[in-house]
Amino acid sequence: MQLNEYERIDKLYAEDIQIIQSSEVFSFSLDAVLLADFPTIPKKGTIVDLCAGNGAVGLFVSRKTAAHIYQVELQEKLADMAKRSIVLNQLEDQMTMYQMDLKDSLTKIPSDSVDLLLCNPPYFENEPQGTKNPNPHLAIARHEIHTNLDEVLAVSSRLLKMNGRFAMVHRPDRFLDILAKMQQHRLAPKRLQFIYPKDGKEANILLIEGIKDGKTAGFKVLPPIFTYDQNGEYTPIIKEKLYGR
Amino acid sequence: MQLNEYERIDKLYAEDIQIIQSSEVFSFSLDAVLLADFPTIPKKGTIVDLCAGNGAVGLFVSRKTAAHIYQVELQEKLADMAKRSIVLNQLEDQMTMYQMDLKDSLTKIPSDSVDLLLCNPPYFENEPQGTKNPNPHLAIARHEIHTNLDEVLAVSSRLLKMNGRFAMVHRPDRFLDILAKMQQHRLAPKRLQFIYPKDGKEANILLIEGIKDGKTAGFKVLPPIFTYDQNGEYTPIIKEKLYGR
Repeated sequence: MQLNEYERIDKLYAEDIQIIQSSEVFSFSLDAVLLADFPTIPKKGTIVDLCAGNGAVGLFVSRKTAAHIYQVELQEKLADMAKRSIVLNQLEDQMTMYQMDLKDSLTKIPSDSVDLLLCNPPYFENEPQGTKNPNPHLAIARHEIHTNLDEVLAVSSRLLKMNGRFAMVHRPDRFLDILAKMQQHRLAPKRLQFIYPKDGKEANILLIEGIKDGKTAGFKVLPPIFTYDQNGEYTPIIKEKLYGR
Repeated sequence: MQLNEYERIDKLYAEDIQIIQSSEVFSFSLDAVLLADFPTIPKKGTIVDLCAGNGAVGLFVSRKTAAHIYQVELQEKLADMAKRSIVLNQLEDQMTMYQMDLKDSLTKIPSDSVDLLLCNPPYFENEPQGTKNPNPHLAIARHEIHTNLDEVLAVSSRLLKMNGRFAMVHRPDRFLDILAKMQQHRLAPKRLQFIYPKDGKEANILLIEGIKDGKTAGFKVLPPIFTYDQNGEYTPIIKEKLYGR
């Protein structure tokens, strides 16, 4: 496998997946691991990984399903890493990476066709005066420079089948906006889980699942997840997600 | 103090408050203790306890403030217990119980005058075919028979000053409705806390605080609270709320 400058191959032990990363461009975060492990994964059909980055979420999910996984990523360097990781894991028959703007997803993936849509979008609003990462790859991945929450949800809703599932990782400070816009785009919120850095701290990550054209009744708040214990070590549940049982 | 049939005097040790309860009519729950301990309590001004029941929330809060506390309760037997508890604790100068429909609150309490509004409303929607407690006092306290979430929020919003605080305890399965209706009634959600019966279980209680005409930015999800430990005993944080340090 050809590795470019600064690239390395990392492993997610829990799923026995190898992934090409680059400290200069992009490497997956705990958020991707949490998202991949959050929704019920359909055994077959179609899964889409939107804002796929270097492909981590789709790669992690691939071991749990025979569904075809389409990945969509705007940035060429990230999409290229993801394509090589697909080959590295011999997943060419199951996975397809499209390097394109997510606005163009419907030119490649039919509307109303997707069983599960996973998304780890840019978290931060694009405030022109706001501080951004000087690395343009990281700035685009983290800030709403080329897309935003409303567009992500609009495209997701169009791609999903009726009763298809939408699952996203995001930040609690965007929570009210997420709930309002999901419902505007026909994605009924159903399951919510907060991740807290440790006991006694405010939540810093949220996972949310919705169903396209679903009923709003039966909303559930899942058990909290703590990332670190009081000694600053990963908690058992996080270790299991990263390293397996 | 005159006690009626089935009545008893209980004590909240954490706040050194005595409270008249009745297993036949109403006794306060952990939810009231959690609500009273959730918001920042203004040192002075005006506090309203809506859907006050036997007065637990207002009584618990009284020790932390010099504010006048108005309580509103529809049911005569409950309001009567609350009035006698005010006397029992020698709080007649600080607390006033109005036995009335909360729709009539504005005849007694001026609009735009309240610094903090606390509410432990009926949790369950009034489904005509639904199962209700055969005890009418408990049915009215628990089901939206004489009021509902929309009305509670509309009245709360009218009573509150601009930038006044609204704090409510409710159930997670009503969460989407709560957030949408708070915002319709100009109550910007700001702080959210989930209570879980124990580690690994879904949340069964939520606490939410909003600010009238507040900004929606800066939404926070506070650390989770577990009610019981793995041995089925109250956790230290719950013991502290009930019995004090």
